[in-house]
Amino acid sequence: MNTPLISIILGSDSDLPIMQETAQILEEFNIDYEIKILSAHRTPKEAFDFAQNAANRGVKIIIAGAGGAAHLAGIIAALTTLPVIGVPILGKSFDGLDSLLSMVQMPSGIPVATMAVNGSKNAGILAVKILACSNPELTKKLTEYQQKLAQTVSNKNSKLQKIGYQQYIKDFLNKN
Amino acid sequence: MNTPLISIILGSDSDLPIMQETAQILEEFNIDYEIKILSAHRTPKEAFDFAQNAANRGVKIIIAGAGGAAHLAGIIAALTTLPVIGVPILGKSFDGLDSLLSMVQMPSGIPVATMAVNGSKNAGILAVKILACSNPELTKKLTEYQQKLAQTVSNKNSKLQKIGYQQYIKDFLNKN
Amino acid sequence: MNTPLISIILGSDSDLPIMQETAQILEEFNIDYEIKILSAHRTPKEAFDFAQNAANRGVKIIIAGAGGAAHLAGIIAALTTLPVIGVPILGKSFDGLDSLLSMVQMPSGIPVATMAVNGSKNAGILAVKILACSNPELTKKLTEYQQKLAQTVSNKNSKLQKIGYQQYIKDFLNKN
Amino acid sequence: MNTPLISIILGSDSDLPIMQETAQILEEFNIDYEIKILSAHRTPKEAFDFAQNAANRGVKIIIAGAGGAAHLAGIIAALTTLPVIGVPILGKSFDGLDSLLSMVQMPSGIPVATMAVNGSKNAGILAVKILACSNPELTKKLTEYQQKLAQTVSNKNSKLQKIGYQQYIKDFLNKN
Amino acid sequence: MNTPLISIILGSDSDLPIMQETAQILEEFNIDYEIKILSAHRTPKEAFDFAQNAANRGVKIIIAGAGGAAHLAGIIAALTTLPVIGVPILGKSFDGLDSLLSMVQMPSGIPVATMAVNGSKNAGILAVKILACSNPELTKKLTEYQQKLAQTVSNKNSKLQKIGYQQYIKDFLNKN
Amino acid sequence: MNTPLISIILGSDSDLPIMQETAQILEEFNIDYEIKILSAHRTPKEAFDFAQNAANRGVKIIIAGAGGAAHLAGIIAALTTLPVIGVPILGKSFDGLDSLLSMVQMPSGIPVATMAVNGSKNAGILAVKILACSNPELTKKLTEYQQKLAQTVSNKNSKLQKIGYQQYIKDFLNKN
Amino acid sequence: MNTPLISIILGSDSDLPIMQETAQILEEFNIDYEIKILSAHRTPKEAFDFAQNAANRGVKIIIAGAGGAAHLAGIIAALTTLPVIGVPILGKSFDGLDSLLSMVQMPSGIPVATMAVNGSKNAGILAVKILACSNPELTKKLTEYQQKLAQTVSNKNSKLQKIGYQQYIKDFLNKN
Amino acid sequence: MNTPLISIILGSDSDLPIMQETAQILEEFNIDYEIKILSAHRTPKEAFDFAQNAANRGVKIIIAGAGGAAHLAGIIAALTTLPVIGVPILGKSFDGLDSLLSMVQMPSGIPVATMAVNGSKNAGILAVKILACSNPELTKKLTEYQQKLAQTVSNKNSKLQKIGYQQYIKDFLNKN
Repeated sequence: MNTPLISIILGSDSDLPIMQETAQILEEFNIDYEIKILSAHRTPKEAFDFAQNAANRGVKIIIAGAGGAAHLAGIIAALTTLPVIGVPILGKSFDGLDSLLSMVQMPSGIPVATMAVNGSKNAGILAVKILACSNPELTKKLTEYQQKLAQTVSNKNSKLQKIGYQQYIKDFLNKN
Repeated sequence: MNTPLISIILGSDSDLPIMQETAQILEEFNIDYEIKILSAHRTPKEAFDFAQNAANRGVKIIIAGAGGAAHLAGIIAALTTLPVIGVPILGKSFDGLDSLLSMVQMPSGIPVATMAVNGSKNAGILAVKILACSNPELTKKLTEYQQKLAQTVSNKNSKLQKIGYQQYIKDFLNKN
Repeated sequence: MNTPLISIILGSDSDLPIMQETAQILEEFNIDYEIKILSAHRTPKEAFDFAQNAANRGVKIIIAGAGGAAHLAGIIAALTTLPVIGVPILGKSFDGLDSLLSMVQMPSGIPVATMAVNGSKNAGILAVKILACSNPELTKKLTEYQQKLAQTVSNKNSKLQKIGYQQYIKDFLNKN
Repeated sequence: MNTPLISIILGSDSDLPIMQETAQILEEFNIDYEIKILSAHRTPKEAFDFAQNAANRGVKIIIAGAGGAAHLAGIIAALTTLPVIGVPILGKSFDGLDSLLSMVQMPSGIPVATMAVNGSKNAGILAVKILACSNPELTKKLTEYQQKLAQTVSNKNSKLQKIGYQQYIKDFLNKN
Repeated sequence: MNTPLISIILGSDSDLPIMQETAQILEEFNIDYEIKILSAHRTPKEAFDFAQNAANRGVKIIIAGAGGAAHLAGIIAALTTLPVIGVPILGKSFDGLDSLLSMVQMPSGIPVATMAVNGSKNAGILAVKILACSNPELTKKLTEYQQKLAQTVSNKNSKLQKIGYQQYIKDFLNKN
Repeated sequence: MNTPLISIILGSDSDLPIMQETAQILEEFNIDYEIKILSAHRTPKEAFDFAQNAANRGVKIIIAGAGGAAHLAGIIAALTTLPVIGVPILGKSFDGLDSLLSMVQMPSGIPVATMAVNGSKNAGILAVKILACSNPELTKKLTEYQQKLAQTVSNKNSKLQKIGYQQYIKDFLNKN
Repeated sequence: MNTPLISIILGSDSDLPIMQETAQILEEFNIDYEIKILSAHRTPKEAFDFAQNAANRGVKIIIAGAGGAAHLAGIIAALTTLPVIGVPILGKSFDGLDSLLSMVQMPSGIPVATMAVNGSKNAGILAVKILACSNPELTKKLTEYQQKLAQTVSNKNSKLQKIGYQQYIKDFLNKN
Repeated sequence: MNTPLISIILGSDSDLPIMQETAQILEEFNIDYEIKILSAHRTPKEAFDFAQNAANRGVKIIIAGAGGAAHLAGIIAALTTLPVIGVPILGKSFDGLDSLLSMVQMPSGIPVATMAVNGSKNAGILAVKILACSNPELTKKLTEYQQKLAQTVSNKNSKLQKIGYQQYIKDFLNKN
């Protein structure tokens, strides 16, 4: 395994079903990553050590997913010069507003690049966009990715024009 | 100066005008305290060291005031066995909801005893109530304090009965 | 049965499935407790008597769980010198915001140490932390408890490293 | 002074500038009232006694104004058969949502007739409407009151038609 | 059938499963009522006529349940001198906050006595409390009702003391 | 197929089950429409072209449904002189508040006529009302539609009066 | 004065300083309008009559501004076939959320085209866009208006490029 | 002037007093930037062209500040492969929640790295952190910057220890 460029960390293993989409997008772009369970509250010393050593280990970007009073991204950001991307995870109350505000409302000096609630896929894409700043090959792949997104929507629209909305909804509901 | 039983920590010196009320209530109850500016985000190592050593230094309770994505109380709580009391501080947006949710929505295992937004006075009183669990003298003082609170309200009510609401409001607005 | 140090009170028996976690954590720490259904609104006189007598009965800390317009913790706090811990209970509307604000936004003089919505386990741990202020044996147990929390996270992380995220998620979803 | 039919109670004297509008509307309808400062948290015993005796003293309706974790109306309602009207008072955070939810989200069995945030005038009018249920004279006065409200709006509209909106706004801003 | 003292109106028949609790509580107190589907938006003329004639028909109190942009209670209140009680109904978005704010934030002069979201039972009890202002028999029944509420809680507590929380929860979950 | 007067656009095919109600209401009023999947984020160029050409193609009104950070309606509105109606779609967090605020809080100069969360049927009716401004035939149909709405409510009320609420609820729950 | 095509109605004269911007934009487009103070709660009968007669008087669009529990737009919409545009007005609590939700969350069948909080200027522009559906001259003016908006932004940007941000801010703060 | 690496764009010149902090932090790190007023709603074509050409012009990162229904960052992100950082700007209602949700709740595929409300300084620091991924010199400067942040807090704390909180607050209030 190569040195990971991206480190994905999760406050709890219950966040893994959401955060796996970050890993999948990085795999799609062929970017080496690691994924770790690491809690700001339950393993604070490990989190502290991880944050202080990540840059030296060659990690370029840290992606942190956490719910509730989501301190993980912010604490890691305080201890590293690497960009930190935060993914607020939807919990049982407050519709994710607690984790969103706990991540995004960082004080001056310590930014966390915050994604949508459960926006783990976008965390991966943002990481790719950051790496692409110094990697033209990745920029090319991102262009293709965006074209693929556009094509998918176009195809859906063509299908809708062809079969009409009643049939489309029947198919859609069967599929989901 | 005696060994402080209570340690008041602030994420920023701009929180001091609010958090001074914690200090004042502890002075009123003759309890030794210290007050420090210590940021989870700007001085994470000092915060880490502080949390790990507080119990050994003889501190019994930690009171943390912070605004925005308020991680201070939670991170300290992760690193100590001492009870941690959190005071969310009102910021420029979200009416304090960001700091309230960042403090109160702690994961299982790491409680923060959260006060009202800007509830710094109550943080001091809760600390006294905790110390009183093993100090009957403090319980007596708390009883007197609560009687004094009741008396103040009673006096205000007596004044209202005597002078009527129009005059009371005039006096009140002059005073405030 | 020994004199209870902790009194757990519930506004309604529907809160019991949540509040049992407080009892369980106290059992884990071998702390004597009682658990009572007591409503500020439906049994106000019993609540009043309970609050006035708790300290004399030897109770050290009161933990109150309630939902909606959650007045129980605040009213009890008004009538005792003991520390009161509040657990807002998630209801059918407002995502628990109603009970959180009803508990945490207490006026000066009458603190309620508020936990996360449904944060009943943390209420128990905070109670242990408070008792530990004058009980070094409990401090030792708390240290062990926090080490156990860290170990659990470490073990999960080790498993994740070994089997990879796809397999981990399969196991996780089977278990939950 | 006659026996008061309406009892206006306030959690704090700082609520008096708002709650005076309740008193004024009752004066406008010639209804005897009393106005008291009485705190559920600072004078819980007085509040308890007040609630238990109000009906026997001849009081027909209780109007309670309070802010923050506004428990006053709910606790009083728990201890009386009289209808209780609650006025949430705007505080320094949460735009009054804390006091609104603390009042309105009452459990089954203990209603509080909740008004708008700072809706003290409407508390008085609702009290008049309730008394009017068994007092046709008051119904007549209410009809006149509503006609007067309509007339005021009509007059403003006539003025607007006559002088145009630019001049109206100038006059309005001078007056306010 | 007797002349109804209470008129329960619903914005939509989908509110009936919630609003039936108002009817049931009135039946429990032997109070004559009517229940009508009447929409401020879909049958505005009928709503207008209803509001203008209710007092003349002998109705004493109007209870209106509605969801979303819940205008029914407010519009009726604008057209009658009778007290109007509003029940916000939980919808598919906003956790009932839309109907709560649409009902409670009434302008000066036109109060709506607002209940909790889905608080239809309390609407009935408030209506009884209002009628009891001039009916000592109802006051006696209300006292008994409140004693019954207290007794129910006491019985639950006694059961909890006898069988312990584990067994209680098993029974509770079976029952619900 | 005739030239469509109304263009319904959707940010994602997952919005189609909601947005089909717009199509159905237009069919009910015999108004020609088209329905397209078109994303401001995934197919920005197509969206841009669509917006710039819609008026020239004879489209009179654009109806856009989108969820989350719902930019579709606003961006289209920026590029056309046609009236744009927006339908916020309920997502997995925030109860639709994110898409509502993303649509309704438009800057000066670029209005979006915003409907309720998932209010797709009303988007269709508003479009009919707009076309009716210059089409008396449609006004007549709208009058009939509103009468039908009123009649439906009246019929439900008659049924309720006849069979009573218990039976009505049984029938209602069976039907839904 | 010509027959007004647009009727602007206000729930209260305190809304006039905000709602004058609707009038000004209509003047800018040379569209005849009327402006009236008309309250759903204080002058319900006038509001009822107004709504029923507006179409017959030749009015094409109604624009209603109101704050708090803002029922005006919805009630008018229930009584007319004309399109109704609603402007929620910012009040003293809830940041305008109360009036926004009271307007936008309309039930199926009765749309209100809701603008941003205090979005009175956009209400006027939407009205122009609606009239432009059958008036090519207005479409031409709208195109010019949008070009003017773009030019204003372009000019500001040119100035910023020329004088730099420090000087721009100085000028900006002097001007505002 | 060198080719700018960072492009700061503003929805309106009223955002400039906030967004100047982004420019200042970039100047502090000696990074070439440009700053432009560019509105997604008022100059959509310029925004479209800007987004499509930025990467070709050598821009590496785009920072967009906007308030209300803040579409600028999202639309730009849809049209470029560059990382886009969004700064929600506090407006007159909703405490910035409208612009925060409009920015952060982006759909899968199109991330916006969202900062705190008015978090313009952090937008600049995040941009530096991103550039530092391939520029070790910048990493060194970031380390120094973080040490300076820590030193500032340490100095404040030392001052607090020396002069006490009363004197500190006096000095603080004089300074601010």
